[in-house]
Amino acid sequence: MGYTDTDWLAINTIRVLAADATAHANSGHPGAPIQQHGLHSSRGMAPMAHVLFNKFMKFNPKNPDWVNRDRFVLSNGHGCMLQYALLHLFGYAVSMDDIKAFRSIDSITAGHPESHDTPGVEVTTGPLGQGISNAVGLAIAEAQTAANFNKDDYKIIDNYTYCFLGDGCLMEGVSSEASSLAGHLQLGNLIAVWDDNHITIDGDTNCAFTEDVMKRYEAYGWQVLVVDDGDHDLEGMEKALREAQSVKDKPTLIKLKTTIGFGSLNQGTHSVHGAALKADDIKQLKSKFGFNPEESFAVPQEVYDLYHKHSAEGAAAEEEWNKLFADYGSKYKAEHDDLIRRIKRDLPEGWEKHLPVYTPKDAAIASRKLSETVLSKIEGVLPELIGGSADLTGSNLTRWKSANDFQPPSTGLGTYSGRYIRYGVREHAMGAIMNGIAAYGTLLPFGGTFLNFVSYAAGAVRLSALSQERLIWVATHDSIGLGEDGPTHQPIETLAHFRALPNIMVWRPADGNETSAAYYVALTSKHTPSIIALSRQNLPQLEGSTIEKAIKGGYVSHEVEGAQITLVSTGSEVCICIDAAKYLAEKHNIKARVVSIPCFEVFDTQSKEYRLSVLPDGIPSLSVEVMSTMGWERYTHEQFGLNRFGASGAYKDKFEFTPEGVSKRAVATINFWKDVPNIRSPINRAFQQII
Amino acid sequence: MGYTDTDWLAINTIRVLAADATAHANSGHPGAPIQQHGLHSSRGMAPMAHVLFNKFMKFNPKNPDWVNRDRFVLSNGHGCMLQYALLHLFGYAVSMDDIKAFRSIDSITAGHPESHDTPGVEVTTGPLGQGISNAVGLAIAEAQTAANFNKDDYKIIDNYTYCFLGDGCLMEGVSSEASSLAGHLQLGNLIAVWDDNHITIDGDTNCAFTEDVMKRYEAYGWQVLVVDDGDHDLEGMEKALREAQSVKDKPTLIKLKTTIGFGSLNQGTHSVHGAALKADDIKQLKSKFGFNPEESFAVPQEVYDLYHKHSAEGAAAEEEWNKLFADYGSKYKAEHDDLIRRIKRDLPEGWEKHLPVYTPKDAAIASRKLSETVLSKIEGVLPELIGGSADLTGSNLTRWKSANDFQPPSTGLGTYSGRYIRYGVREHAMGAIMNGIAAYGTLLPFGGTFLNFVSYAAGAVRLSALSQERLIWVATHDSIGLGEDGPTHQPIETLAHFRALPNIMVWRPADGNETSAAYYVALTSKHTPSIIALSRQNLPQLEGSTIEKAIKGGYVSHEVEGAQITLVSTGSEVCICIDAAKYLAEKHNIKARVVSIPCFEVFDTQSKEYRLSVLPDGIPSLSVEVMSTMGWERYTHEQFGLNRFGASGAYKDKFEFTPEGVSKRAVATINFWKDVPNIRSPINRAFQQII
Ligand SMILES: [Ca+2]
Ligand SMILES: [Ca+2]
Repeated sequence: MGYTDTDWLAINTIRVLAADATAHANSGHPGAPIQQHGLHSSRGMAPMAHVLFNKFMKFNPKNPDWVNRDRFVLSNGHGCMLQYALLHLFGYAVSMDDIKAFRSIDSITAGHPESHDTPGVEVTTGPLGQGISNAVGLAIAEAQTAANFNKDDYKIIDNYTYCFLGDGCLMEGVSSEASSLAGHLQLGNLIAVWDDNHITIDGDTNCAFTEDVMKRYEAYGWQVLVVDDGDHDLEGMEKALREAQSVKDKPTLIKLKTTIGFGSLNQGTHSVHGAALKADDIKQLKSKFGFNPEESFAVPQEVYDLYHKHSAEGAAAEEEWNKLFADYGSKYKAEHDDLIRRIKRDLPEGWEKHLPVYTPKDAAIASRKLSETVLSKIEGVLPELIGGSADLTGSNLTRWKSANDFQPPSTGLGTYSGRYIRYGVREHAMGAIMNGIAAYGTLLPFGGTFLNFVSYAAGAVRLSALSQERLIWVATHDSIGLGEDGPTHQPIETLAHFRALPNIMVWRPADGNETSAAYYVALTSKHTPSIIALSRQNLPQLEGSTIEKAIKGGYVSHEVEGAQITLVSTGSEVCICIDAAKYLAEKHNIKARVVSIPCFEVFDTQSKEYRLSVLPDGIPSLSVEVMSTMGWERYTHEQFGLNRFGASGAYKDKFEFTPEGVSKRAVATINFWKDVPNIRSPINRAFQQII
Repeated sequence: MGYTDTDWLAINTIRVLAADATAHANSGHPGAPIQQHGLHSSRGMAPMAHVLFNKFMKFNPKNPDWVNRDRFVLSNGHGCMLQYALLHLFGYAVSMDDIKAFRSIDSITAGHPESHDTPGVEVTTGPLGQGISNAVGLAIAEAQTAANFNKDDYKIIDNYTYCFLGDGCLMEGVSSEASSLAGHLQLGNLIAVWDDNHITIDGDTNCAFTEDVMKRYEAYGWQVLVVDDGDHDLEGMEKALREAQSVKDKPTLIKLKTTIGFGSLNQGTHSVHGAALKADDIKQLKSKFGFNPEESFAVPQEVYDLYHKHSAEGAAAEEEWNKLFADYGSKYKAEHDDLIRRIKRDLPEGWEKHLPVYTPKDAAIASRKLSETVLSKIEGVLPELIGGSADLTGSNLTRWKSANDFQPPSTGLGTYSGRYIRYGVREHAMGAIMNGIAAYGTLLPFGGTFLNFVSYAAGAVRLSALSQERLIWVATHDSIGLGEDGPTHQPIETLAHFRALPNIMVWRPADGNETSAAYYVALTSKHTPSIIALSRQNLPQLEGSTIEKAIKGGYVSHEVEGAQITLVSTGSEVCICIDAAKYLAEKHNIKARVVSIPCFEVFDTQSKEYRLSVLPDGIPSLSVEVMSTMGWERYTHEQFGLNRFGASGAYKDKFEFTPEGVSKRAVATINFWKDVPNIRSPINRAFQQII
């Protein structure tokens, strides 16, 4: 306690800096509502941010990767100038020039915070509801890591996760899902602060958001606290944060009542919102806060001094922690080395020898079952693996037999050291929580649902890709092959959707070796998430498959001299193509080669020479996949797929995904291309795409 | 009140029928967890369904389209055998043969209920959380239609919407969003019954779902009621439903405590769940319920009699309503005729004359602004239009100036007759609610958000398409052209995603006439939803565009004799291509024609002859669109796009989407294809896709 004028000077510096940067970014561009909303948020939350960062948070700006730092998540990411200002003032590698470059191309101060661009930003936010759900993931990761690494005499991991969020985040379903789970999991290490400014972009929250938020969070099992004067009452904020820390078995939501547009000429009125802060308003705001109205981007030295002092304390805390950890290492060498390895996102040497290998003599097995075998074989050597399912464990086969559930001990259902998370029917939260778990740095999350319902989590999946988090979706029941559950559960567009999303691998393995390959690449790709699409139905072990071939993303599964056509396929259709090749030989005297492309994105990274060896010039090609043909034109001349919804029931005959059906279309393809001289493989392109 | 043995016979008939149909569908196929979960649900909810359908619901099985019928939504759609059994027993066009065909190809009794397949099914459910959110839409539609059509002396519209839901639905974020809004909107006409059986697919709800649901719904502003014995207490159920009806300004959630696996050998134990009901268990269940254990699909005549009696009452009620409505028509002819027209989903004659038309002399305008003009011009002639935005009204420009908000009168912010819905930051609920509004039959919903956040609603969008509902997404800020908000807000994969989804139109108009065309086709397509992708930035009115051309989905925007290349584009890139054509002529002496394809799906329905006239043989083509190139290979030889995330800031120069950048790639395309004789347009295909 005991706040001085310097504290207020610092708070007002943040406010003025945010206004200057926004006005600067705005020059020549009228203020978009989101941007202005963000500016108001930045100003409104500055007092709380000051208290939190200076009195509570433990971090070292010189090493933003220190594992036991406190995490801060700005879920209302449009207020990112608040965060950029804090990072700058504390001495992170965010310069004043970076602040001036706010919202300009190739700056590290993007319009919303991006974790892979900006040191000190833990997760990428902006799309509402994601940040608070990421925060739940960060808190889960802390609890699990602490439970596994702490010893009676060594509290190696004990950080908190703090999160600021606005009304928009509270309205989004993903935050409801994540908050319900956080309450169930009794995450006492999670403290969220709600900027209750009674304003959304459309106007007063009375328009659409009149629920009793505090009661709802109590219903979830959270502690709820209120700070009535979020504009001035620094002591009250500190008290609330202490109270939040003191309750160990519940997450806390602090309702911070703030005045919209604080400091502006129109503060507290509705009109402040959405409109840009005008030049004269910025000037009076600076005057009001004791700044020179003619100066921009000014930071008083005593503010730097105050903040750098706390940063130095953080550096000292890390130094002390380093000693503690070294000492820990002398007693618990295995754990010590394991933690260091995990933070580097390295895998233990030789882990890949545990991946199962198959021969054609092995039985036909559903690829979801093959995935279960992979997980069961590798979980022992990869203790960072932490799995779960959105209430489809028995269908997704995501839980190895000996797994313990991650649960609060009081439930009697597991412990915090457990490695299996019962996400409930909450796909979107599962995606966002996995992003948070991955961002924490010590764990490697995977989560199961039906492929069709990965779409429920599209918002989170997109951010996995953008923020380059390593995690795995175990997406079973991957096609109309699931049968009787019908078109509501049968993906048609899903692979096209995620194949079109940059920096995510979509795998659809055809057999056991390809499933092992999918996991191999997914686990060793430190900056790319993966979706592994897996069948409900049994698939034979193929003659031509090996892990080595499949990790190239595409390869020749069945070669034949003098082939007249290439059949190209994925997953459960590869074996149909191989049968079709036999059928073509027997019934039509046609020679067909078969190619499997379990992962477009990985295949695309191979040399052109290799890709042309798989999809050669000179003969036509036909793709076969039981869903939308969209995207297959990039690899093949003709496409056999399903550009309509499926049906409830057994599918093969209805849609002709049989050796006969494929052969019919292969013959049509050969006929259609027979008069074209020097058929060019689609691998050949006039120019390179921007990637 | 006063339930007899016949009531219990009927209830047990439903239970036995559900078990028989599930066992029948199962033969040869091991029971999937979802299916078994559904069977248990069917059995558990049979008593409540019996009370609700017989004592409360008003419907006529001979006319499932009667506008004032009560609506029933099975949000836990995996329990659909309950619904199929009810439909059959009441005499809907669902025969015993249909029941026996449960979950088989081309049956009307799919694995989850599909509204376009099965008479009496109001909305398509199965994907969890959707049904209850659709129910909110149905209730909104009822309230709005009643407010606009009822007169003091004529209560034409006064139906209720009932919804059954399970734990899974309650865990999904979309239901949280919709339920919060329903509470805000004080929808007293909405009554939901929660099957509180304490079981999810993963096991006991204690695993992941320990929140206080009733408290949460109270926080949303719902009335909450409890029935302690959902297995036996028919009177209690009736009492709760009456109490629900009596509260007019709140939706009601009834918690119905049921026993999992009721009637089974293992009832009430966890083991009943997930495993199929064995043959001997079905037999003992039949014996226990007084049925012949050796007989299957048996319905006692007195059960048919009882249910048909209620159906006859429903038919009589409709008859009476028809008289009332005819009488109403004599006093309020305009309203009468308007309602009849709306129910047929016809638009008023000549409405399309209100669509704005532009010439190249008109100013450059952002297409989101052009969309606002369309809405403003047509709202007067299309009173069924009911719009909204997920808290981005000022950015989406979805609200015409004179619009009134749809709000409970007590808020002072609008009335139930209003036509603008403040959805809050709830994209997924908006999508699901629009599905419900459209399904009601009297309204035509549209909703705005950024294109990037339509992805949050992917689960609902997919069901719009599958269930063939007419509705419109006004999806603004449609590309990296939005600039400073950065990659978290810039769609890359979104168009590919929804283009790959069957039965939905994705429009990306290039100017005013194309925007009018997009609305024209969207509004006149009775069974297809639309997404209209609109720019933030200004776009010029193009020389070659007319509504007539654009409604074909693709057309020649700029023709030139002896063209050496076709530039193919959409939206904000069409004008860049037109400038590129000029640039190519001036700097490279190259003749380029330009094609605009604002909607793939509509273009695909044109004759091959027409499509070949737009994308002819003989010259190469290059597509230009500032997002994923996926799917463009279907129309063009080469593609210029963005297969990576965007950047925060002005984009054009960075990614070369300029006349120069396009020209560079056009030259490369021409060079690459110059040695290929008889270049074949990609419109030519070896065989037709299954559509
Ligand atoms: Ca707010
Ligand atoms: Ca349940």
